[in-house]
Amino acid sequence: MNGNHIIMASDPDPVQDFCILYTPKPDSVRVGRTSSLQRCKNASEATADDFIFSGIKSAGDFKESGFSTLSINPTAFPGLNTLGMSFVRADLDVGGINVPHFHPRATEVALVLEGKVYSGFVDSANRIYAKVIEKGEVIVFPKGLLHFQMNVGDSPATIYGSFNSQNPGLQRIPAAVFGSGIKEELLKKAFGLSGKQIDEMRRKFKPED
Amino acid sequence: MNGNHIIMASDPDPVQDFCILYTPKPDSVRVGRTSSLQRCKNASEATADDFIFSGIKSAGDFKESGFSTLSINPTAFPGLNTLGMSFVRADLDVGGINVPHFHPRATEVALVLEGKVYSGFVDSANRIYAKVIEKGEVIVFPKGLLHFQMNVGDSPATIYGSFNSQNPGLQRIPAAVFGSGIKEELLKKAFGLSGKQIDEMRRKFKPED
Amino acid sequence: MNGNHIIMASDPDPVQDFCILYTPKPDSVRVGRTSSLQRCKNASEATADDFIFSGIKSAGDFKESGFSTLSINPTAFPGLNTLGMSFVRADLDVGGINVPHFHPRATEVALVLEGKVYSGFVDSANRIYAKVIEKGEVIVFPKGLLHFQMNVGDSPATIYGSFNSQNPGLQRIPAAVFGSGIKEELLKKAFGLSGKQIDEMRRKFKPED
Amino acid sequence: MNGNHIIMASDPDPVQDFCILYTPKPDSVRVGRTSSLQRCKNASEATADDFIFSGIKSAGDFKESGFSTLSINPTAFPGLNTLGMSFVRADLDVGGINVPHFHPRATEVALVLEGKVYSGFVDSANRIYAKVIEKGEVIVFPKGLLHFQMNVGDSPATIYGSFNSQNPGLQRIPAAVFGSGIKEELLKKAFGLSGKQIDEMRRKFKPED
Amino acid sequence: MNGNHIIMASDPDPVQDFCILYTPKPDSVRVGRTSSLQRCKNASEATADDFIFSGIKSAGDFKESGFSTLSINPTAFPGLNTLGMSFVRADLDVGGINVPHFHPRATEVALVLEGKVYSGFVDSANRIYAKVIEKGEVIVFPKGLLHFQMNVGDSPATIYGSFNSQNPGLQRIPAAVFGSGIKEELLKKAFGLSGKQIDEMRRKFKPED
Amino acid sequence: MNGNHIIMASDPDPVQDFCILYTPKPDSVRVGRTSSLQRCKNASEATADDFIFSGIKSAGDFKESGFSTLSINPTAFPGLNTLGMSFVRADLDVGGINVPHFHPRATEVALVLEGKVYSGFVDSANRIYAKVIEKGEVIVFPKGLLHFQMNVGDSPATIYGSFNSQNPGLQRIPAAVFGSGIKEELLKKAFGLSGKQIDEMRRKFKPED
Repeated sequence: MNGNHIIMASDPDPVQDFCILYTPKPDSVRVGRTSSLQRCKNASEATADDFIFSGIKSAGDFKESGFSTLSINPTAFPGLNTLGMSFVRADLDVGGINVPHFHPRATEVALVLEGKVYSGFVDSANRIYAKVIEKGEVIVFPKGLLHFQMNVGDSPATIYGSFNSQNPGLQRIPAAVFGSGIKEELLKKAFGLSGKQIDEMRRKFKPED
Repeated sequence: MNGNHIIMASDPDPVQDFCILYTPKPDSVRVGRTSSLQRCKNASEATADDFIFSGIKSAGDFKESGFSTLSINPTAFPGLNTLGMSFVRADLDVGGINVPHFHPRATEVALVLEGKVYSGFVDSANRIYAKVIEKGEVIVFPKGLLHFQMNVGDSPATIYGSFNSQNPGLQRIPAAVFGSGIKEELLKKAFGLSGKQIDEMRRKFKPED
Repeated sequence: MNGNHIIMASDPDPVQDFCILYTPKPDSVRVGRTSSLQRCKNASEATADDFIFSGIKSAGDFKESGFSTLSINPTAFPGLNTLGMSFVRADLDVGGINVPHFHPRATEVALVLEGKVYSGFVDSANRIYAKVIEKGEVIVFPKGLLHFQMNVGDSPATIYGSFNSQNPGLQRIPAAVFGSGIKEELLKKAFGLSGKQIDEMRRKFKPED
Repeated sequence: MNGNHIIMASDPDPVQDFCILYTPKPDSVRVGRTSSLQRCKNASEATADDFIFSGIKSAGDFKESGFSTLSINPTAFPGLNTLGMSFVRADLDVGGINVPHFHPRATEVALVLEGKVYSGFVDSANRIYAKVIEKGEVIVFPKGLLHFQMNVGDSPATIYGSFNSQNPGLQRIPAAVFGSGIKEELLKKAFGLSGKQIDEMRRKFKPED
Repeated sequence: MNGNHIIMASDPDPVQDFCILYTPKPDSVRVGRTSSLQRCKNASEATADDFIFSGIKSAGDFKESGFSTLSINPTAFPGLNTLGMSFVRADLDVGGINVPHFHPRATEVALVLEGKVYSGFVDSANRIYAKVIEKGEVIVFPKGLLHFQMNVGDSPATIYGSFNSQNPGLQRIPAAVFGSGIKEELLKKAFGLSGKQIDEMRRKFKPED
Repeated sequence: MNGNHIIMASDPDPVQDFCILYTPKPDSVRVGRTSSLQRCKNASEATADDFIFSGIKSAGDFKESGFSTLSINPTAFPGLNTLGMSFVRADLDVGGINVPHFHPRATEVALVLEGKVYSGFVDSANRIYAKVIEKGEVIVFPKGLLHFQMNVGDSPATIYGSFNSQNPGLQRIPAAVFGSGIKEELLKKAFGLSGKQIDEMRRKFKPED
């Protein structure tokens, strides 16, 4: 990418004020091989609570990697549906990391709520833009680009990220590449690793049942 | 509006990784009656600092109404340009308000960083959705709808809002209606106020030079 | 068309020729707290009448304010569904007004069919753009911005407005602000009015049952 | 991802209140083989007149076919720029026609201001939707589909059309097909006409210099 | 913000990874005058085969005009649904033509797989852009504009076209204009043909039952 | 067209027929730290050649990995500019691979022109969809998702890919992750590799100067 097309991004429209996601119970609507239907909750029964979310007041459960994340899209917060936005709370223990990942359908604007976080992204030309940022600082990760975070302070860190899609999607590189079942030969050639190394990685990142 | 059109909005695309806004100095490019040209900063000269913003670590200046706001779009934070997002920090003194207003071009997702804030919006059917929310809670204000906030706690409140437009726009109702110079007769009829009352309001909200 | 130039975004696409809105009868499909499902009428049963609308040949009913309006979206005219447009006929008695309002999801292009109409809008910087326009003249109200109209001629006025959304939405300021139930204290502070004045306004604009 | 939102396209956004098209004089900016640059007029110099258009109060010049048209896009009405809409006035003498044509980039909503007009369109399955409509009636021509009009009344007819693009484009079938220079052999085969017939058509529709 | 980004539209987003089109059998869901409902296949039952299409390995059936076409949209290839793309294979016998036509909702990028093909389009100003292209060459037909192809080599030709819409639509001019039932009088005037000539054309292009 | 159904969004619009990218020579326009300006070539000087591309008739240069790619966006093919599409030719030697990568801003539809290619992608849930496809078969890679290819036949393979963005972007995982300079500690933790292993990978994938 050559960095200079005249441009513009952005911001289409819903065609109504809102559409609170209403998914009927699986047993009543799910039809064989299809997903259940989705509809709007009747607007006359909407209340303030439909537009307020209280589930990110504290961190989610920590995983081994010292990282916990709460991704809030319309499934968790039905009032977001059709409004073109969603958000995430991420917590990092001391030394904890958010592995290299990307969101296929959104830009992310991340605010550090607590701590010191090495944060950055890589562009299409493989240039890196990374730095330690602190409480109150904001970093933008352009749409679809690979990014990562690591708590480099001596206390836990908390980040609040916003997305310009109601469902930004997420691909974490280690698990998507080594835990999804891509042919060993392809991975060996792609990363220049031995069969043994690839096997180890695959064991490490294979999905849990 | 009946709340149930078939729907989905959202999230168009930039056509490059990023385009850091570069506005040449006014005297060198501004041509008579036109605005200055805008371009992308050369991508090979971009650095991490172009994508990091440190200007909302503390509150902006308070105005009489006990309200201070820092709206961050690509003019303040050039790295946001073309990425379809922007953000705001708002601080409210005890009892302070963010007057009824709306953003013509964006949904807002607002996170309470400190305090207790009466927050809400009004839909196209004049129904209100409002409630007191607290630190760590999130409210969504659907695209273009009238909303408002008031600090109802006994300590200062801070709110961080994200938008799905790089320039959401803003119309504050009191100033837009009474401070912009709309004909007195129209305002009298619209609000059922006397000429004297309208005059008072106009004096109150007329723009300062 | 002059065939060139870097310009401006807009106007996404339907993914079919048309989709005439078909809403099954409430009793057959409405499921508890959800809105009824919406679908397209079978294309093979579409006729010319599905794409023609005859309901704005004359003015709607006048309200006290000397203003009548017929807003035509896919609920009234199912053939508009998915096509990205809708329209409105507004009639103003002598001295009648269309109160300050805005459409959260559309630009409006308004053509004066009869009469002399003081028409204008306010931008994000609270600048007003207003003037008396006459039969055959057109004014554009940019997306989401506050605008208003008043018949300043000595005969009834008629306006035809087009929108670039199938459901532009509408917020009339007096009713949305004073008739929706926003806390009195917030309104007092926002407008600098007394509790008594606010009470009066609220009584005036409270919704009729 | 859970995979199944019911969806609908439409209506993207500008990223500013407005951008009045300002095209510097050709001699000062045109650079060899490029078009002149385009910019926004400085917002602080905008006036109400920038958003008002008075040029369709009367019909344009009639051509042989009893048809006159005034297409108003940002070149004619700079205030429309970036706002996603444009419009047209068409006048038809008794028996006059608007030849089969389409707009590659917009839906059209057409209002009959005077007269009786046979109006219709053809869909992708070659089904026709056509009917005579009268003063005050509205017809919608879905995006990109072939449509046409003929004055079947006994007095002149006037139509006002709105588009959901600032530059809908236009291809009139007779001239685009027979007047553009497509190889004779292809046209003979496409329409099953003789070389002589094609030659005649080409002469009739060749562009005037 | 001061209002003047140079800009360009494009490429909105799905709100999920994919949504394989699942249409229940007509008899189980079709409700009187409505189309059947459409949903996503349950993501957990998706397989690689849902995203692979094998139906354009050889040409479709040839019609009289020496032209055969296979248009692949989500009805034929359900995995394309919501992903904003579709494609077509066209085969042309020696001398065969693809009649002047356009796609109301997409740009087309066409690659010649075999043969020598006279290919071109006409713009809104009736200028033609046409030339003979060969195996391995690519031509772009801008969104919604009239285009055409003719095999001018001495062996069959094959073309692969891609579209940036999942359902680009198609209007073939001869059939849409002369085979759809537009009033004879309008066509006579539009094309300057006699009633007899029009009758002939109509007979030629009337839809087969 | 089959005319119906609730579907999926996509495919916004250009606002002109086309805009052939014209980039003035660097020395005449480049201004210090900004990219050069971009404009449309004057439409009256456009020719058929502006819309035809002949540069993918044969494979590009092969790299060590047995892979060669020609990515054609408006920089290489100026006529594509603003039309929302671009394309790529990829050639794979026997056993050659296209490493795991993704396009941040587009869906890809890939047609196998020659050979047998193991092709697949991974979704947000780390499920893999992969299979060997052959000449004439098509696979779709949903927007932004990780995908890969390997020639598993015994002769060279050629693939033609189309994108619904004029500049889809590209991130190749090995180089983006290991060759961009992300902190060693973060990579060690993310992939569970030793410092020595990471060092090796970094050496392998570091950008050449």
